[in-house]
Amino acid sequence: MNAFNVSEHMQTLGLQAKTAAFLMARADAATKNRALKALAKRLREAGPALAEANEKDLARATAAGLSAPMVDRLKLTPKVIETVALGCEQLAGMADVIGEIIGMKQQPSGIRVGQMRVPIGVFGMIYESRPNVTIEAASLAIKSGNAAILRGGSEAIESNKALALLVSGALAEAGLPVEAVQLVQTTDREAVGQLIAMPEFVDVIIPRGGKGLIERISRDAKVPVIKHLDGNCHVYVDDTAEFEMALRIVDNAKTQKYSPCNAAEGLLVSAAVAEDFLPRIAAIFAAKGVEMRCDPVAARILRADDALAGSGARVVDAVESDWSEEYLAAVISIKVVEGVDEAIAHINRYSSHHTDAIVTRDHVHAQRFLREVDSASVMVNASTRFADGFEFGLGAEIGISTDKFHARGPVGIEGLTSLKYVVLGQGEVRS
Amino acid sequence: MNAFNVSEHMQTLGLQAKTAAFLMARADAATKNRALKALAKRLREAGPALAEANEKDLARATAAGLSAPMVDRLKLTPKVIETVALGCEQLAGMADVIGEIIGMKQQPSGIRVGQMRVPIGVFGMIYESRPNVTIEAASLAIKSGNAAILRGGSEAIESNKALALLVSGALAEAGLPVEAVQLVQTTDREAVGQLIAMPEFVDVIIPRGGKGLIERISRDAKVPVIKHLDGNCHVYVDDTAEFEMALRIVDNAKTQKYSPCNAAEGLLVSAAVAEDFLPRIAAIFAAKGVEMRCDPVAARILRADDALAGSGARVVDAVESDWSEEYLAAVISIKVVEGVDEAIAHINRYSSHHTDAIVTRDHVHAQRFLREVDSASVMVNASTRFADGFEFGLGAEIGISTDKFHARGPVGIEGLTSLKYVVLGQGEVRS
Repeated sequence: MNAFNVSEHMQTLGLQAKTAAFLMARADAATKNRALKALAKRLREAGPALAEANEKDLARATAAGLSAPMVDRLKLTPKVIETVALGCEQLAGMADVIGEIIGMKQQPSGIRVGQMRVPIGVFGMIYESRPNVTIEAASLAIKSGNAAILRGGSEAIESNKALALLVSGALAEAGLPVEAVQLVQTTDREAVGQLIAMPEFVDVIIPRGGKGLIERISRDAKVPVIKHLDGNCHVYVDDTAEFEMALRIVDNAKTQKYSPCNAAEGLLVSAAVAEDFLPRIAAIFAAKGVEMRCDPVAARILRADDALAGSGARVVDAVESDWSEEYLAAVISIKVVEGVDEAIAHINRYSSHHTDAIVTRDHVHAQRFLREVDSASVMVNASTRFADGFEFGLGAEIGISTDKFHARGPVGIEGLTSLKYVVLGQGEVRS
Repeated sequence: MNAFNVSEHMQTLGLQAKTAAFLMARADAATKNRALKALAKRLREAGPALAEANEKDLARATAAGLSAPMVDRLKLTPKVIETVALGCEQLAGMADVIGEIIGMKQQPSGIRVGQMRVPIGVFGMIYESRPNVTIEAASLAIKSGNAAILRGGSEAIESNKALALLVSGALAEAGLPVEAVQLVQTTDREAVGQLIAMPEFVDVIIPRGGKGLIERISRDAKVPVIKHLDGNCHVYVDDTAEFEMALRIVDNAKTQKYSPCNAAEGLLVSAAVAEDFLPRIAAIFAAKGVEMRCDPVAARILRADDALAGSGARVVDAVESDWSEEYLAAVISIKVVEGVDEAIAHINRYSSHHTDAIVTRDHVHAQRFLREVDSASVMVNASTRFADGFEFGLGAEIGISTDKFHARGPVGIEGLTSLKYVVLGQGEVRS
């Protein structure tokens, strides 16, 4: 009945993407920005068509019994549409990084050597329910001069198809190849397997989703993967921390939102201040219903506090697995450490190398923490929640990398580029 | 009889490397430089011991009937030893890149965000006969604050073991962990398979060797590979090229040495100057015995040249495969193209994206060539032979990458580092 050939479809998308990538790499900044502005305009004008497509996905999701938060993520509300449209306009307003030349220096031979930033080529994006990612990925592809092949979640296929049509229209309007951004037209899972195993067409894969999905993709991919695994982030409160600041940062890092990967999952407190600090932060956690999984010292301190005992604070004895766990919930692990040395050692052992922060006034401790904590983002006196492409000033975020290779931490447009060497000579030859 | 367990050995090396890497990352510049200078001194003093070990390898190689060039590569002559000793001292004199902070900027939230350069961790190096690579890799590991696991060629095992002892001595003398540089102690091929599949211990693999070896390693590796495949490099002589410069560059790119990957394998000449230019370069090639594999137009021009015909010039009709071939020999493919457009298209289709050069006076053509040729090194008016870490001013070369991900082109110390984000706050939280 179904004559659709997934492998053929993917090969076609790959070949078209490769061809489009060559034209995108040559496109000038004004043309790419025109496409981004056209896309924003089309998004705002497409209200009814998008709503109709989205309605189909929502009806199917509801009929399939998806949970309310899952259905929520699928929704293309006017607010979501306005946000992605604004995102396109912001990208259009950003400086173009393609063609940037850095480090041009004369060498002893006389040649001048520098590096030019160029698009990486074709990226594949694999994501789950939120259809707005379709526009985010498309706009990043346009701005960075790359081609993209997008594989969204099957539950959002109708919404994604409607959005991809807007992207094609905007590309055509600006005179760019419509194959620069292509949506995989099938929900067949085999398409993912194909997409990650076409090194002849795809230069890098960016998966967004749960840890299981990303591990599976990393294991099977034949091309590099910009991967984001888990976020077991810590805040360490040092001996000299200002209490008000420490309370504010720890509270924000844990409770401002529970689900982001940059929320804190572990609190470390220097023994020198634990007796004073722990009851105060625990009172805040208790009021917000945050469960505290404590090492024996922290548990003793908190259980000895009468005010806290009466507040319904949930103080639980931590087990070994608590130190490694990413709760993404109203739970935090708490450990009293000897000082900055033990804090660094604990973090380097248990953290997921995502984001870790120290609260301190001590310059030497701050410097040691910055240098020695082996995480993608290391902070002094700031909330771990800042680990984000927009907050870091990247202008856009493709994802967050927990890898050390190529890109580490929040990945902006530059993560979709590479640097080639350019050499300017006056007839020099090698002797 | 042989109770040696390869898998256990590799796991031990991996675990020890990971532990050593943590200490190396914290080592200060002076300590690392002390180790490099101690290594240079030990190399110069180890003459007889090295000669003895090397003699064993040479005797075995000769007995096994290895070709003279293969045996030559194994030789640890006083000159080779002095060269690597000098290399260690040069590295010691270079600025330390670890801890460098770039791009620190204040964000709207008040936090300052920048990036700090840190070692990548543990690299595995897989190489063939030349034992001097053992010292090059060891010294790069020390300078970059990484740990390394070295797997040399089985034919050089005795020399490599003797060299590795000098490295351990130098590390110990400087107070650095001796496990920072470890040589795989077995020649069993299974060790390579293990080394490239230990993501828990090894962060990146750098193979040096033939294309077959590197393709095999890339296919099977479970960690990133900084890979160098082939070097099918081109020189394009544009309409406005100065002939003397073009002759000098093409001659140098092809004949200065035939074996390096950055030697030219293809010559493209603009039709506007082909009639005049081709006989002149062909005379040089004829005198040096370089075979010319020509497209029909170039062949016609060269065969019509009487002076050339009398010189014994080898003009051969090119076949399709000539455009892709890396000869590494006294052979060059020659094609007449319409102009810079066809030159760029030919190069992007057939080159190995290693190094390609244009000879021109035309600014617009030079800029287009630099921007549009999709190769790791793109040059104007310089010999492709300059594509080299030392000539590019990197101070050292770990290898040359033909990939676009992480490192592209000649890879220096920075290729063994990653950038982590550092955030300096004054108590900021996310709202």
